[in-house]
Amino acid sequence: MKENSDTPEDEHHWFMFQAQKEAINGLNEGGIPVGAVLVKNGEIIGRGHNQRVQMNSTILHAEMACLENAGRIKADGYKDCILYTTLSPCVMCSGAIILYKIPLVVIGENENFKGPEKHLQDNNIQLINLDLKSCKKMLKTFILEHPEIWNEDIGL
Amino acid sequence: MKENSDTPEDEHHWFMFQAQKEAINGLNEGGIPVGAVLVKNGEIIGRGHNQRVQMNSTILHAEMACLENAGRIKADGYKDCILYTTLSPCVMCSGAIILYKIPLVVIGENENFKGPEKHLQDNNIQLINLDLKSCKKMLKTFILEHPEIWNEDIGL
Repeated sequence: MKENSDTPEDEHHWFMFQAQKEAINGLNEGGIPVGAVLVKNGEIIGRGHNQRVQMNSTILHAEMACLENAGRIKADGYKDCILYTTLSPCVMCSGAIILYKIPLVVIGENENFKGPEKHLQDNNIQLINLDLKSCKKMLKTFILEHPEIWNEDIGL
Repeated sequence: MKENSDTPEDEHHWFMFQAQKEAINGLNEGGIPVGAVLVKNGEIIGRGHNQRVQMNSTILHAEMACLENAGRIKADGYKDCILYTTLSPCVMCSGAIILYKIPLVVIGENENFKGPEKHLQDNNIQLINLDLKSCKKMLKTFILEHPEIWNEDIGL
């Protein structure tokens, strides 16, 4: 079994590409383009994207939709998981990550929105920011076109 | 419009009874008996109970199910809301409360489980604990009978 922190950078980028595919699916449905995948031992076990527009959901941010899609897992089943998300997680999603003690979160960017990253780190969650232009550009375009939907999603 | 902090104590107890009814609905479905209602200007606008067993959900804690049931609300629409929940909110649910800036959370108890209450208070969320034996007893009985389901729900 690979150690999370030893996952090669190109593997991080491949899984982030899968999260970006989720974000694109969301965009194609008219939704907020944020996507996530949950990876365990090199396999995707959950995937999801923001469902505010599509399902009128207030709780299905990409990370939450992904955790829900992964289904019920015993608590120690999360300990070798990595969550990939195209955007820095908000305080709700960070709370879910802390609740289930997912040890590593890889994010696409934190320029369009920066969640409470210190809150994650204070709870022993490691964070890697791939800082990808492709993630920034897709969401930035959406925010400029739909500021009211975006603000609603982040509680502003 | 009533000020949240001026809500009479008997009104808090009446709404908590509604949250307890949700918990009982959960129990009758074979689920974890935690319930919640969201109240705005003296009216219940959302209600829910834990759905781990019933829907195999990892994210539908009572508070999350309640927020989802309330539907999409503009951010400033939460500012005169009160969330009633039979149990001290976990870190995920606390994150959702902070995200939407719900100013007052009334809980039934925090003996069976105590969430990060300081995290709520540090984010300007007021917390009132009604410390009700009825809330404690129902959940305690469930935990004793189904410790593995309970531990899964709180990430242990």
